[in-house]
Amino acid sequence: MSELLPPLDRLIQQFRKLPGVGRKSAQRYVFRLLEMSDAEAAELAEAILDAKRSVRHCSVCFGLSQDEVCPVCLDEERDRTTVCVVEDVRTMLTFERVREYRGLYHVLHGSISPMTGVTPDKLKIDELVERVKAADSVIGEVILATNPTVEGETTALYITKLLRSYPNAPKITRIAYGIPVGGELEYADELTLSRALEGRRNSEG
Amino acid sequence: MSELLPPLDRLIQQFRKLPGVGRKSAQRYVFRLLEMSDAEAAELAEAILDAKRSVRHCSVCFGLSQDEVCPVCLDEERDRTTVCVVEDVRTMLTFERVREYRGLYHVLHGSISPMTGVTPDKLKIDELVERVKAADSVIGEVILATNPTVEGETTALYITKLLRSYPNAPKITRIAYGIPVGGELEYADELTLSRALEGRRNSEG
Repeated sequence: MSELLPPLDRLIQQFRKLPGVGRKSAQRYVFRLLEMSDAEAAELAEAILDAKRSVRHCSVCFGLSQDEVCPVCLDEERDRTTVCVVEDVRTMLTFERVREYRGLYHVLHGSISPMTGVTPDKLKIDELVERVKAADSVIGEVILATNPTVEGETTALYITKLLRSYPNAPKITRIAYGIPVGGELEYADELTLSRALEGRRNSEG
Repeated sequence: MSELLPPLDRLIQQFRKLPGVGRKSAQRYVFRLLEMSDAEAAELAEAILDAKRSVRHCSVCFGLSQDEVCPVCLDEERDRTTVCVVEDVRTMLTFERVREYRGLYHVLHGSISPMTGVTPDKLKIDELVERVKAADSVIGEVILATNPTVEGETTALYITKLLRSYPNAPKITRIAYGIPVGGELEYADELTLSRALEGRRNSEG
């Protein structure tokens, strides 16, 4: 056994597809797996297949769903006049965890990045436009919550121009970027500080 | 979706069984998995099942094997008079990687630890004795390569006494514990230094 047995090597290769998993971690996973009972290992394999099988994208917001339309889009208690546009499902989940936002979402599944071949047609932008323009649409505000990166900014700008070009365009806003709560001004980078200045508001009190 | 969908939550629980995987890592794995194609995800699941299905313990040395007896035990070129006793398969693989050792192995699958209920009968110690005592045994030396921990020391001592109690016992040796190559004496702990002193040899040259 001067090398690992082929089935173990193959499993290591597979584990390495997971984010942040290098050879050492993958090997540790494999050895733990060998220590598990057959039933336990089968449970893990089955959970992987089941997640892929039973989870798809909501046909309205493109968030995750077990059904055609996701629980958020179906929730009658939510504010149907506001749509928050995010780059990915993770951001959507972060918003949900905050429990501050009660509107709907639209997941773009990426951001415009010509360098890596992600053009607007690869994102769910057309679908957003359709949602906004739909005859029965009650959307009054689109909140752009893309990341404060070059790609995120480009995407926000692109969507803003696109939506504004239609008659009866809804209000289009962006979330505020600035100094994080608890952050120290002394250590803020220039870009964040300039964004914080730009977004200044009248002091209350 | 104030919480994650149940199939995703279940998969997170499953990933958390792997060593060093917390909630955050497990969540990242799940999202990467959702981005994969169905075929890719199935490949991972299948590799898990296949590793469990096709890998078992060698009936001679208790290392990993796809067949009844592992390639190391079957290898006619290896020195069949020497058996290196290790606590686990990982240590065996480390020895193999060094490519210095050409004898056989015996994997104990643990070390004696009364505190956690690991008594000698839970380890492959009887099987080692049988191997040594076998009528056709050509074993002339048993190298104890247990870890330099209380449990490893206890195990080495136990095996030494046990094997010595039989007539025609083979030579029983332990690998050297001391200052690691590249280590600085200044930072060595007392125990390692005392072991290094104990194991001193005549300086050559």
